[in-house]
Amino acid sequence: MTRPYNAATVRALYPGSFDPVTNGHLDVIVRGAALFDELVVAVGTNASKQAWFTVEERLEQLRAVAVAASVRITAVAFSGLLVEFARAQRIGCLLRGVRGARDLDYELPMAQLNRKLAPEIDTLFLVPVPEHAHVSAHLVRDAGRHGAELRGLVPECIRATVEQRLREGNPRG
Amino acid sequence: MTRPYNAATVRALYPGSFDPVTNGHLDVIVRGAALFDELVVAVGTNASKQAWFTVEERLEQLRAVAVAASVRITAVAFSGLLVEFARAQRIGCLLRGVRGARDLDYELPMAQLNRKLAPEIDTLFLVPVPEHAHVSAHLVRDAGRHGAELRGLVPECIRATVEQRLREGNPRG
Amino acid sequence: MTRPYNAATVRALYPGSFDPVTNGHLDVIVRGAALFDELVVAVGTNASKQAWFTVEERLEQLRAVAVAASVRITAVAFSGLLVEFARAQRIGCLLRGVRGARDLDYELPMAQLNRKLAPEIDTLFLVPVPEHAHVSAHLVRDAGRHGAELRGLVPECIRATVEQRLREGNPRG
Amino acid sequence: MTRPYNAATVRALYPGSFDPVTNGHLDVIVRGAALFDELVVAVGTNASKQAWFTVEERLEQLRAVAVAASVRITAVAFSGLLVEFARAQRIGCLLRGVRGARDLDYELPMAQLNRKLAPEIDTLFLVPVPEHAHVSAHLVRDAGRHGAELRGLVPECIRATVEQRLREGNPRG
Amino acid sequence: MTRPYNAATVRALYPGSFDPVTNGHLDVIVRGAALFDELVVAVGTNASKQAWFTVEERLEQLRAVAVAASVRITAVAFSGLLVEFARAQRIGCLLRGVRGARDLDYELPMAQLNRKLAPEIDTLFLVPVPEHAHVSAHLVRDAGRHGAELRGLVPECIRATVEQRLREGNPRG
Amino acid sequence: MTRPYNAATVRALYPGSFDPVTNGHLDVIVRGAALFDELVVAVGTNASKQAWFTVEERLEQLRAVAVAASVRITAVAFSGLLVEFARAQRIGCLLRGVRGARDLDYELPMAQLNRKLAPEIDTLFLVPVPEHAHVSAHLVRDAGRHGAELRGLVPECIRATVEQRLREGNPRG
Repeated sequence: MTRPYNAATVRALYPGSFDPVTNGHLDVIVRGAALFDELVVAVGTNASKQAWFTVEERLEQLRAVAVAASVRITAVAFSGLLVEFARAQRIGCLLRGVRGARDLDYELPMAQLNRKLAPEIDTLFLVPVPEHAHVSAHLVRDAGRHGAELRGLVPECIRATVEQRLREGNPRG
Repeated sequence: MTRPYNAATVRALYPGSFDPVTNGHLDVIVRGAALFDELVVAVGTNASKQAWFTVEERLEQLRAVAVAASVRITAVAFSGLLVEFARAQRIGCLLRGVRGARDLDYELPMAQLNRKLAPEIDTLFLVPVPEHAHVSAHLVRDAGRHGAELRGLVPECIRATVEQRLREGNPRG
Repeated sequence: MTRPYNAATVRALYPGSFDPVTNGHLDVIVRGAALFDELVVAVGTNASKQAWFTVEERLEQLRAVAVAASVRITAVAFSGLLVEFARAQRIGCLLRGVRGARDLDYELPMAQLNRKLAPEIDTLFLVPVPEHAHVSAHLVRDAGRHGAELRGLVPECIRATVEQRLREGNPRG
Repeated sequence: MTRPYNAATVRALYPGSFDPVTNGHLDVIVRGAALFDELVVAVGTNASKQAWFTVEERLEQLRAVAVAASVRITAVAFSGLLVEFARAQRIGCLLRGVRGARDLDYELPMAQLNRKLAPEIDTLFLVPVPEHAHVSAHLVRDAGRHGAELRGLVPECIRATVEQRLREGNPRG
Repeated sequence: MTRPYNAATVRALYPGSFDPVTNGHLDVIVRGAALFDELVVAVGTNASKQAWFTVEERLEQLRAVAVAASVRITAVAFSGLLVEFARAQRIGCLLRGVRGARDLDYELPMAQLNRKLAPEIDTLFLVPVPEHAHVSAHLVRDAGRHGAELRGLVPECIRATVEQRLREGNPRG
Repeated sequence: MTRPYNAATVRALYPGSFDPVTNGHLDVIVRGAALFDELVVAVGTNASKQAWFTVEERLEQLRAVAVAASVRITAVAFSGLLVEFARAQRIGCLLRGVRGARDLDYELPMAQLNRKLAPEIDTLFLVPVPEHAHVSAHLVRDAGRHGAELRGLVPECIRATVEQRLREGNPRG
């Protein structure tokens, strides 16, 4: 029985778009940070679709919500092949939140492909607390750009900023 | 950011029926043992339905396959409420394998209920390698009692024993 | 455009086992009572599997939780074909709660068969509030018989009674 | 037990894109109109993707099929946040058709978010009659632009118009 | 490119419980008989649960509905391991009807296990016509034993017999 | 009982995008060719989204992998309505691979619509071998454009070409 990279500790990586960071993301972050020795949260910059928040803004959101939740994380940007990035970071496992069967159906082939490409890196799935099971960045953006208050959907420490930006419309859309 | 129980290490618990132990179970065991400081594999003895293998036989199977795979685990029996057992064992997270959406739909409400009953204990899900995605103890029992060879379905070190027992029929059925 | 039975009002029927009544059931009852002119809650007595609570106890539970929630319902037992019972009661629509895709996959063929057998009776589905999305009578029974506290899972006004009965074991099991 | 808005009657809202109106939509309209005191059918104008039919054409289609089916509805356009529009219209419940698990997985988070944003407005789901379970506006558009006859897919009273438009290609595509 | 068993023709096997034969089964039979050179319909006799109709009655039902539909099939009983039976019959592919995602989730691991046990035998899935998508032997039995008319659910040529038997109750239940 | 088109043999059609051809596609091709008298593989050219490989390149890929697998197929391009194309080719059944419930949910309405438009043409579904259950052209493109080696994901005889093209970026993107 050996740890990945024969290391004494396990680094976990939580990759995502975080456009913006939601309470569902925060839930995964808090739980992941408690279970693994180190937690890296990585903002993917590959996505072809135009984001509402810049990568730098999303990294700031992640750092702010982690501080507010008293959780220690490393927030980084990444591009290219996820498992290559993870390997370079000596990551032992990937974390992903799945809200239900539909999410898993989407995540499962990626997890199996990633394991094929990098057998030493595993993927672990967490399910959200029921209160956040309906929260997705997509729905948050939709509600926010129509002016809805986002209380309970995004962490309080970034809520005002996120609400304002979404109401103003996407400067890069 | 605190570890569960303010402990320096995280103990993971993999609960199940293991009637018998399959290659899908072994996959979760090997991966869980690499990611967590300690792995407890617990054979539930509550199940109303009659098992094919006794609890003691299943514990022996678990220990045998762990030794053969060079994995260090603790194999124990449990009854009663899972989260109470986990709490008494100072378990930080539960591990469950999910082969697809159907498994998750079954597991998700239990994970959310367990988290409500014991918020300090999380549930993490692993997906099997594709080669084992169709392997379940139920299908193994069905194939085995009709005389099928179980190569690739159960670990080699217990295969002959499992095949013989399933062919003979359930002594407690 | 005509109302079912050419009636001025619509009676809705919420059928189920209610073994025991959960907060998920109560959620459907409160919402159904607000949307329809009359709400009949019907305890099915066909189920082959042995119930934990008698039909009379379940009717009492329904009446107690309805009073506590200030909701007016009619609680009745039924046996035989659901749509025949509904027709005799001049029911315009059936209500069912679905917690997710798995529930709907189970409910959908029944709804379509019922509509074929009785085209004047429709089936409407409600989804629970997220807080109750993991609550089922099955999980409540499982947790309760192992001694778990059921706060938040069953309505407070019947909680002590339900907990005690589940701890004692099924007298008819 | 109070009606939404303490009103004596319940207004239901059926929102959608209706691009074009299909027999599946008509099925929901006929059934919704029978169960609720008033039915508002609302054509959403937010969709970022280019529609084939103008909002005005879709409103005309809705009115035409309602008249042909002897159903009384109010057809309106809306933009902005759905629950704000619904509140302003004193709507008590939203109606949505779900053809199966895939549809529900998509609808469920929106229903839960809407209920969070506007607790007084509920969402009810109807399943189509089996004959229409495979009919979606998307498949109708695909079949139609390749020249398929749409008999049985869209209401007869608008079929010729819809077929012609789809064959001609999207003037706004 | 070789046919299974290097045969000039392909024999297909449609295994099931057929308790009783439904219009959904008949749909698969008619379509399978058109696509393959020979169609064997096999009544499984392993099922632990008590059937309503004897194996002989079910074989008679299959033969009667095939004659009425002008379809040529061979109806046989089987026990033991399905793929062993199929191999002995020189079967090239298994046919199964799937009404939706829930059915496939159940069928998929069996198909993959069967292919592992007997790589020369493939499994093909058919989806029912929408009119039969809600028809299952289970729902037919439930409706029938409560006295529902089964028109449109089971083939007309066996309907009276099936209705009478279901109303009388299960002589072996 | 008659064959489609009263023909002595059955022609099967396997339609898709094949952008690029994967081991999952090859699996369907090999199995389809064994079960039906003739197999036509058709590259759809309707797709609005920009492909990575030209239709001609994809046809060449199909022919190359078929030769390497000793399978006889006819590879053709098609546009317009699939069932019209199939009818003109005297096709008796369409073949589609489904990796799981999510795929079937997408395929099922199309199969039912196609059957409505052309009742003489059936759709049959195959599930992949577990080793290919996570392989999709979409994931292959994603992995390939980030530089991943595609061994085991695309047939060896076209792997180098596909890898090079994906690394270079989409000339038509």
